[in-house]
Amino acid sequence: MSPDEIDAFLARTQVNAEGLVPAVAQQWDTREVLMVAWTSLETLRETLSTGRAVYFSRSRGERWLKGETSGHVQSVREARLDCDGDTVLLLVDQVGGACHTGDRSCFDAFGGPVTVPA
Amino acid sequence: MSPDEIDAFLARTQVNAEGLVPAVAQQWDTREVLMVAWTSLETLRETLSTGRAVYFSRSRGERWLKGETSGHVQSVREARLDCDGDTVLLLVDQVGGACHTGDRSCFDAFGGPVTVPA
Repeated sequence: MSPDEIDAFLARTQVNAEGLVPAVAQQWDTREVLMVAWTSLETLRETLSTGRAVYFSRSRGERWLKGETSGHVQSVREARLDCDGDTVLLLVDQVGGACHTGDRSCFDAFGGPVTVPA
Repeated sequence: MSPDEIDAFLARTQVNAEGLVPAVAQQWDTREVLMVAWTSLETLRETLSTGRAVYFSRSRGERWLKGETSGHVQSVREARLDCDGDTVLLLVDQVGGACHTGDRSCFDAFGGPVTVPA
């Protein structure tokens, strides 16, 4: 995105009372949903201008460059906003595992098939 | 999921101060991310036991059966929790458009490619 496009993207982004918006990170080619994290207008601007996914850690209360310690960075190929502007979708190329457990996706953890009762 | 599996799923689900958790709805076969909405333990239980996606509308402050008025229902094929238990991923079969605009996905609205500066 050009600087003007980044400004337009941020102008449409609706943050919550904490100044944050949820971001879904999806592997661009396999379309696997990797993780959901929070981002601020500041970290979103950094993400869109550098092409590296940066989030906001609510537990630590600070900017969080994904993969800074693990090396499991995300190169962002595309960013989209939803119809309300209150959720971001990042299509990324994930190095290694997205999850702190080492799993490829944070959604490998728990779940299963849902069956409609007869 | 069996009733026991549903109980286990809900026991691991971490709701926020409002009693809600974000849910990502993804088309099960194309893996397209369709929308992100909020759900409560109550609407999540209904989702898992009926196989129809039910959310909680924060704007209306009430249960929201997706597609109740539009007919654009979501049949849930699989549900997963992330590593922290604070985000739900629903693999669904979406009838029609997921978005209130009629678009297939709520993320068709706005965005574009991100390029890393030289």
